[in-house]
Amino acid sequence: MTGRPVTVLGLGRMGSALAGALLDAGSRTVVWNRTADKAEALAARAAVPAGSAAEAIQASPLVIVCLLDYDNVRAVLEPNADVLADRTLVNLTTGTPEQASALADWAGTHGAHYLDGAMMAVPQTVGTPEAFFLYSGSSEAFDAHRPTLDHLAASHYLGSDPSVAELWDSALLGSGYAALTGFLHSVALLDTAGVAPTRFLPLATQWLNGMLAFMPDLAQEIEAGDYSKGVSPVDMNRAAVHNISQISTRHGVDADVHAPLLALLDRRIADGHPADSFASIVEVLRERRD
Amino acid sequence: MTGRPVTVLGLGRMGSALAGALLDAGSRTVVWNRTADKAEALAARAAVPAGSAAEAIQASPLVIVCLLDYDNVRAVLEPNADVLADRTLVNLTTGTPEQASALADWAGTHGAHYLDGAMMAVPQTVGTPEAFFLYSGSSEAFDAHRPTLDHLAASHYLGSDPSVAELWDSALLGSGYAALTGFLHSVALLDTAGVAPTRFLPLATQWLNGMLAFMPDLAQEIEAGDYSKGVSPVDMNRAAVHNISQISTRHGVDADVHAPLLALLDRRIADGHPADSFASIVEVLRERRD
Repeated sequence: MTGRPVTVLGLGRMGSALAGALLDAGSRTVVWNRTADKAEALAARAAVPAGSAAEAIQASPLVIVCLLDYDNVRAVLEPNADVLADRTLVNLTTGTPEQASALADWAGTHGAHYLDGAMMAVPQTVGTPEAFFLYSGSSEAFDAHRPTLDHLAASHYLGSDPSVAELWDSALLGSGYAALTGFLHSVALLDTAGVAPTRFLPLATQWLNGMLAFMPDLAQEIEAGDYSKGVSPVDMNRAAVHNISQISTRHGVDADVHAPLLALLDRRIADGHPADSFASIVEVLRERRD
Repeated sequence: MTGRPVTVLGLGRMGSALAGALLDAGSRTVVWNRTADKAEALAARAAVPAGSAAEAIQASPLVIVCLLDYDNVRAVLEPNADVLADRTLVNLTTGTPEQASALADWAGTHGAHYLDGAMMAVPQTVGTPEAFFLYSGSSEAFDAHRPTLDHLAASHYLGSDPSVAELWDSALLGSGYAALTGFLHSVALLDTAGVAPTRFLPLATQWLNGMLAFMPDLAQEIEAGDYSKGVSPVDMNRAAVHNISQISTRHGVDADVHAPLLALLDRRIADGHPADSFASIVEVLRERRD
């Protein structure tokens, strides 16, 4: 155990994994949970259980917060506003960009440095090369504590606006959910012909790797705002997605999964851009902002 | 130029790529297109243009068909039913499982061997290791012509039911579309904070690779029909997807993309399975069959 201590507030499955990774890295780790029994397994690994949240906050310059939601964060921190001065709060609790901004403001008024974080990990991957965490807020806090944060996961600093990590979190999770939902829909479709999911898996993986390899092209087209050079036009894709929807319905599988894409392609065609490349549907997605 | 000739009917972008790959492999290649000018570039590479579809069919034991749709296939083949006997038709035209079944039946009544195919490729990848083609129908036809077909793409035979290749095609395309749509939605969301798509790309790719690595777990849970051991329960995912939808709406980005998944998770909870793993939503997708 070396160096200054690190505090972890909240010992649910993720919080316990964070404290475990810090202990594995040889950090003096102070832990606190609303119900004290959660600290027992960590205490057996030489973590120091604090008697109160105030005691835990006072014990370390770096306080990592990992609670169920922002309401819980407020409930734990607000009564202890007077011990936050000069502490660095790294809040890994899941929430919205707006909640992160508001909490950063509140922490600032009490003299704390605030770094918001989002954990792209499950408890099993914390502390392994598979995990990565997103951070936004105080760059000084990030720079000062990065060696400690790197014990939890690969660290990515995304900017001084404390809300940005939560937005990236939504973007990454959303991409992942969409991919998994499409996979499960396809599994259901092939099930109608008795094809086992594990039989579908190798070609699905190969095809999806091809889609990943296609994403840089999409990103560059969007960045350039030029949809005239793509190989895959909106109207051709509309026909293909319509075909998939029809086949789903005819085989008795929920076709709603592909309905939003069909609507986006239809709107792009209605906007007068049937020959634009597939990437151009991002323009329709963005339209809702106007 | 060696061996028996191969015929390609239809010289659109994909048909021309197929004929080009056959020529590259040293096959004697007979080509035909409704409008003869499409054959000129291939003739310059030693392809043999046929004067009619009948002549093209009679020239080769193996006839590869790649037209715009099944209506076109019918329009080309039906007047030539009398020259189909003992020919192997490999129909790579995009269509539905039902269209493939019906054409296989029709071809059989005229003495042709029928193999239905789906091309997981774009013209640029035909003949490269990136491309793979799916086949279903006559296994004898597949075995006999596999060496030729392997010049076009990696060949996967999926069963004797001629409709199955089209179903796999829908499943793979659907998975891919879902992943790309999710990516574009996330790009639109991050655009609201001025994050460029190419900046999002590396972490998106890393996260999506993690999702690909998660798919074998999903496939095995579904195959076992046991959703009690997964790490990611329906109710937790419901909260996360709801959060993404809310953030999308609040940032003025179309939230419809994630609405179908939210509905599936809600239905699984309403069915009394909030603690089942994420993979269990396949059960809700399949329900529509009942």
